[in-house]
Amino acid sequence: MEESVDAAELQAFLTREFPQVAEDFIVEAVGEECVIRLRVADRHLRPGGTVSGPTMFALADVGIYLAILHRLGPVALAVTTNCSMDFMRKPEAGRDLIAHVRLLKLGRVLAVGDVLIYSEGGTAPVARASMTYSIPPREKPDPAKSDPAKPEAARA
Amino acid sequence: MEESVDAAELQAFLTREFPQVAEDFIVEAVGEECVIRLRVADRHLRPGGTVSGPTMFALADVGIYLAILHRLGPVALAVTTNCSMDFMRKPEAGRDLIAHVRLLKLGRVLAVGDVLIYSEGGTAPVARASMTYSIPPREKPDPAKSDPAKPEAARA
Amino acid sequence: MEESVDAAELQAFLTREFPQVAEDFIVEAVGEECVIRLRVADRHLRPGGTVSGPTMFALADVGIYLAILHRLGPVALAVTTNCSMDFMRKPEAGRDLIAHVRLLKLGRVLAVGDVLIYSEGGTAPVARASMTYSIPPREKPDPAKSDPAKPEAARA
Amino acid sequence: MEESVDAAELQAFLTREFPQVAEDFIVEAVGEECVIRLRVADRHLRPGGTVSGPTMFALADVGIYLAILHRLGPVALAVTTNCSMDFMRKPEAGRDLIAHVRLLKLGRVLAVGDVLIYSEGGTAPVARASMTYSIPPREKPDPAKSDPAKPEAARA
Repeated sequence: MEESVDAAELQAFLTREFPQVAEDFIVEAVGEECVIRLRVADRHLRPGGTVSGPTMFALADVGIYLAILHRLGPVALAVTTNCSMDFMRKPEAGRDLIAHVRLLKLGRVLAVGDVLIYSEGGTAPVARASMTYSIPPREKPDPAKSDPAKPEAARA
Repeated sequence: MEESVDAAELQAFLTREFPQVAEDFIVEAVGEECVIRLRVADRHLRPGGTVSGPTMFALADVGIYLAILHRLGPVALAVTTNCSMDFMRKPEAGRDLIAHVRLLKLGRVLAVGDVLIYSEGGTAPVARASMTYSIPPREKPDPAKSDPAKPEAARA
Repeated sequence: MEESVDAAELQAFLTREFPQVAEDFIVEAVGEECVIRLRVADRHLRPGGTVSGPTMFALADVGIYLAILHRLGPVALAVTTNCSMDFMRKPEAGRDLIAHVRLLKLGRVLAVGDVLIYSEGGTAPVARASMTYSIPPREKPDPAKSDPAKPEAARA
Repeated sequence: MEESVDAAELQAFLTREFPQVAEDFIVEAVGEECVIRLRVADRHLRPGGTVSGPTMFALADVGIYLAILHRLGPVALAVTTNCSMDFMRKPEAGRDLIAHVRLLKLGRVLAVGDVLIYSEGGTAPVARASMTYSIPPREKPDPAKSDPAKPEAARA
């Protein structure tokens, strides 16, 4: 059975597992659509005040990852195997970015998510992304098998 | 006519225009294939010692950008409009990443480049990327039009 | 100014310009979201009864193309420059495919659209696609410039 | 261990399993790089004489599929899960298309291939594609588990 992890648990998971980037991201809402905020800071900017491409990639990647954990629980060690992004508009200077994430598939071995990224308050998306994650085999409730989850996931 | 910009000029351009990331990247070779090294540091890592996805995105993005500037000269303000990446293997801990970049198209309005990323010394690619850049209109040698290049590029 | 082309006009455009494939596609609705039906026939199938990948590509490509024409009018000669697709589930045998298309950007030179494809009656998408089109320069209302639109579009 | 399937065997496999499209494709070479020819016919064309997008998708898809079978043997039932393509130039009228295919990864569950498509005799690629395939579980040569008809032991 799948469990559901709420926004506060996801935020705590980020802080615990990804301390170097956790403060950048705020889990605003979870559900059919998950909403993740990127608190834009100077280190995310490029000349001209635009948010860098790697920063938008990171937002999409974290957003879909959290949407998967929302469904599978915080033990999953999914790894990104594929990404496609369209950068469509220049983000507005001095505004946070808001990612709206949907899971399109949560299969046994692959999950696919879809993201639209907006400047806060904007109505036209600045970027679109879809990403595939490889889901490691999930342990069955077999009491004879007590190996802890491995701390490192090799890419599929 | 297209001019050709050598490795030292590209490195100087990075340092001048992107001081916040320039020290991460070394232009190792330019030509039909451009080779860019990412000096992997702690800030690029994720738990387990793997290089983060955004870092590999940044390497691919910078690599194709430099390959375009190698052909067009350092004034161009190309912006990324599309990216697709496959993350195929876990980078080896403690090794730099080496990007091998080819330009597949350098058109009037769009350029497309292709990248394979390896751990230094490795023979199997850890990631593949292709990216499209929008090329801003290039000024013709019209003496009546003397506006300087705009310092900010809007996404196409 | 942009004009809006209705479903019947788009259907007539398909029949006139793409007679070899027009009977495959039905424009079911246009608007913020355009809905295009693929009438699945034996020639679209692969062994096992699944709809072929090229057929789903064609549906996504036609769908976004029509969504652009809905906004720009039937004279536009947009060409596909980029596509990314995720094939997530096997289409159900003996059912039509229904594409739900949104335009995410309609810029001066590039348009980006997004598609979810369902088996008719299904609730989980079988495929997702996003595509970029290059928009040829649109004629301005300049009476001194009377060149007709070129009948053939080179890829950007 | 992996076996290697030669060009004639791949051609025979195509004819046997995909009779509706087999005559379109010719396996010209296999090895580190596989070369597949698309015999362009009227049914592949769009107005203006260009080869249709779905046709180029089909060539890339078949090309990577055959490159996988070259390595795994003709029994594999890999399915495409992801595709990204860039359409960069208009194919030349009246020429076949030639796909040059490399496998970048052949993992336990995922394979990734990369294609450049040229008009025959051309030096600049008309399109680029990368595709991911999901590889179904392969039977291991486990003598204790060699009778698929044998009922499984009672589950724990």
